[in-house]
Amino acid sequence: MSQLHLGVFDILTPNQMTQGLWAHPRNESHRYNTLPLWIEIAKLLERGKFDFIFFADSYGYPDNNAELALREAVYAPVADPMLLLSALAASTTHLGFVTTASPTFEQPFANARRFSTLDHLSEGRIGWNVVAAGGTSAAKAFGREDTLGHSERYDQADEFLEASYKLLEGSWQDDAVVRDKEKRLFADASKVHVVRHEGRYFKLEASHACEPSPQRTPVLFQAGSSERGRDFAAKHAEGVFLKAPTQEALRDQVADIRRRAEAHGRDPRDIKIFSGLSAIVGRSREEAQQKEAEYRAYRSREAALLTYANATGIDLDALDPDAPFTGISTERGRSHTERYTRHSGSVQTVRQVADNFADKEFRGIRLVGTPEEIADGMQEWAEATGIDGFNLERYLLTDTLRDFVDMVVPVLQERGLFRREYEESTLRERLFGAGNRRLPDRHPGAAFRNLAETDKAR
Amino acid sequence: MSQLHLGVFDILTPNQMTQGLWAHPRNESHRYNTLPLWIEIAKLLERGKFDFIFFADSYGYPDNNAELALREAVYAPVADPMLLLSALAASTTHLGFVTTASPTFEQPFANARRFSTLDHLSEGRIGWNVVAAGGTSAAKAFGREDTLGHSERYDQADEFLEASYKLLEGSWQDDAVVRDKEKRLFADASKVHVVRHEGRYFKLEASHACEPSPQRTPVLFQAGSSERGRDFAAKHAEGVFLKAPTQEALRDQVADIRRRAEAHGRDPRDIKIFSGLSAIVGRSREEAQQKEAEYRAYRSREAALLTYANATGIDLDALDPDAPFTGISTERGRSHTERYTRHSGSVQTVRQVADNFADKEFRGIRLVGTPEEIADGMQEWAEATGIDGFNLERYLLTDTLRDFVDMVVPVLQERGLFRREYEESTLRERLFGAGNRRLPDRHPGAAFRNLAETDKAR
Repeated sequence: MSQLHLGVFDILTPNQMTQGLWAHPRNESHRYNTLPLWIEIAKLLERGKFDFIFFADSYGYPDNNAELALREAVYAPVADPMLLLSALAASTTHLGFVTTASPTFEQPFANARRFSTLDHLSEGRIGWNVVAAGGTSAAKAFGREDTLGHSERYDQADEFLEASYKLLEGSWQDDAVVRDKEKRLFADASKVHVVRHEGRYFKLEASHACEPSPQRTPVLFQAGSSERGRDFAAKHAEGVFLKAPTQEALRDQVADIRRRAEAHGRDPRDIKIFSGLSAIVGRSREEAQQKEAEYRAYRSREAALLTYANATGIDLDALDPDAPFTGISTERGRSHTERYTRHSGSVQTVRQVADNFADKEFRGIRLVGTPEEIADGMQEWAEATGIDGFNLERYLLTDTLRDFVDMVVPVLQERGLFRREYEESTLRERLFGAGNRRLPDRHPGAAFRNLAETDKAR
Repeated sequence: MSQLHLGVFDILTPNQMTQGLWAHPRNESHRYNTLPLWIEIAKLLERGKFDFIFFADSYGYPDNNAELALREAVYAPVADPMLLLSALAASTTHLGFVTTASPTFEQPFANARRFSTLDHLSEGRIGWNVVAAGGTSAAKAFGREDTLGHSERYDQADEFLEASYKLLEGSWQDDAVVRDKEKRLFADASKVHVVRHEGRYFKLEASHACEPSPQRTPVLFQAGSSERGRDFAAKHAEGVFLKAPTQEALRDQVADIRRRAEAHGRDPRDIKIFSGLSAIVGRSREEAQQKEAEYRAYRSREAALLTYANATGIDLDALDPDAPFTGISTERGRSHTERYTRHSGSVQTVRQVADNFADKEFRGIRLVGTPEEIADGMQEWAEATGIDGFNLERYLLTDTLRDFVDMVVPVLQERGLFRREYEESTLRERLFGAGNRRLPDRHPGAAFRNLAETDKAR
């Protein structure tokens, strides 16, 4: 088995996966909008040789029950993670940073400028989680009635990426910047091309604002679980986040992604696949179980169901608890339902579905035990499913991460499953090996490297 | 005379005020997209007790002569300064950071979230330079044929600020966030209000994503020099940048801004007025003059005239040099012409205008001499014009700033003209005194603090 890749999945808001846990006395997540907390975490993760920290983000918030959402800090308030990254880059030398931006709400030119700036400032340690974001609350925040339908949002994201590739890969040739002070030649304009994009959703005419950064296109991540989302991921993504309730289901999803990648002309190994991992570790199993019980005591069932309603459009609390749960017919609900409730084998009651969700929420693989038991579980899941790594989900900031770094990482290293030292410098090289700073030639973004069809000069 | 305020004016691109100076052997400005350079500068400025560093920014670039623009790095390439700020905030404890965002291209909800995030992360050290940006190159980068006309862009900016005030000042009441873990109450939804804005240019319906930051509305800066721009500044700005070729002209502009502020119901002292300052300092006058000659040797006249053309729409190089220069009739040209060429007293030839601009470019007050002479000049300009401070403009990074901090600041301190220690913690308090963390009650933004007319609950 090859070495694992490890990330941390987080968000700049008090609760992440377990609603209500913000209130735990040792949870420092209420400091989500302060620099010292995240700098401490970034340094901790670098000490633990993690590949990256990944920040989810959304312009939306649960607007169907503001009283509850604000009382329990259910994705509100939230801060913009992109603006945190240069501070973390300055505090570390190897850790990667993945942040979220959505084609639904951004513009290709400004978005490309942001990611190129971050890739320069971090010297090639940036990834972009592409989210074809939906939801009415975010739409209304931008003055729209709603976002596009689910499938059309992926068409929009597809076109957004095409425009982004043109800017990031095609506008400046590798040798455009000369920076020769004696010859008085900063850049050779014959090697800087104007992008002229006119599609269904986006239009632009500009050369990219930024000179080529170490990675050019940031490492692309995606987490869509729907049919269309998986196909989008298989085409574009270099890192994919999957969640499934069983090893069989996860293995099937992994195989499906790799098969689809091949159909898109890519090497199936060009995608690193991650599963969410919620690990509660103790020096003994009892200690771990005690921690788990302690964390569970802070859970808010109603707040958990609010996140379910927010994701699926179905308010389980409003349904007859004894009625059979027949699935979800709303478009945005379907993929979530498939992910979280479908693999139960038989028809459940609404109460069972609610209980099940309130127990697991959106967490991925859950492991509780000693460092060795956690490592055993990770190894078993990786071997059984073909995933490449895990994305650690917090219970407490910073305890969950510290426990993992101090206790589990050494065991993984001992078993040869995880790096002891950083060897590569950019995020893409960390995932795909030294020398792979740029998108591989078989990636669809590489097709836009030669913008011969556009003007040679601006 | 009260103490001066000092900022640094910069931009993330190789050349700032003097086109061509990127090629000076000691200029490190080609490292404009690296963290170590700016962190070193931020620490240097904090050592010098500066109020803030200010970053200009634009999505546009000189697209009328790409060959020249790229050869001499005339505002191309450029990186996004907003993404640099958390690294600088993490490296300092008092220095303020002003960055640019334009109502022409941003959306109020996302923009407010960005500034609130930065204000949280920096603990209240953020300012926002509001630019009613025009220009076709930026417009095309966003898929538009052009931006609105000059005056209408200010209407748009006015409405953008109104929407921003609603989010930043009105959405969350001061006591909305309780953060009581024992009572399980993060925030009181009855004190968080949905902003419903529907105007001519912007529409949104959302509560602000972020809880109240130390300053709420970032300190507002503006640099418009046109009639409409000055009125906009007088209404909204707390910091105004002015440039004028003579003390008389600057004094008149200062008086005009303060008069207009009063007409808007504000205290004229609620606006701190800054002039650009290009200071070349030497241990002797000869050393300073030698430096000046050395810097001048790197100037590119053609690149300077490109920035003139970019700002005014007039290519002086294409006109008959011996023809009388009769002024500029294009809308975007007029205000620049007024600022840079109008106060010459008599009609000039095109060559004279070009020579004059190539000599001064967009620099403000230019002083060359010993530390004492620089301090004398600053004192004289401040006393004669009523400005509150200066915005230092670079020749070389980091030499210009280091010379000023090491040689001029001690003289200003000795004379009681500049602080010896930081006393206040937020940027607004630094400018207006301890306790003034928020917009004053008479500022138009304060009118949006009580959103009683909007829904009490989301």
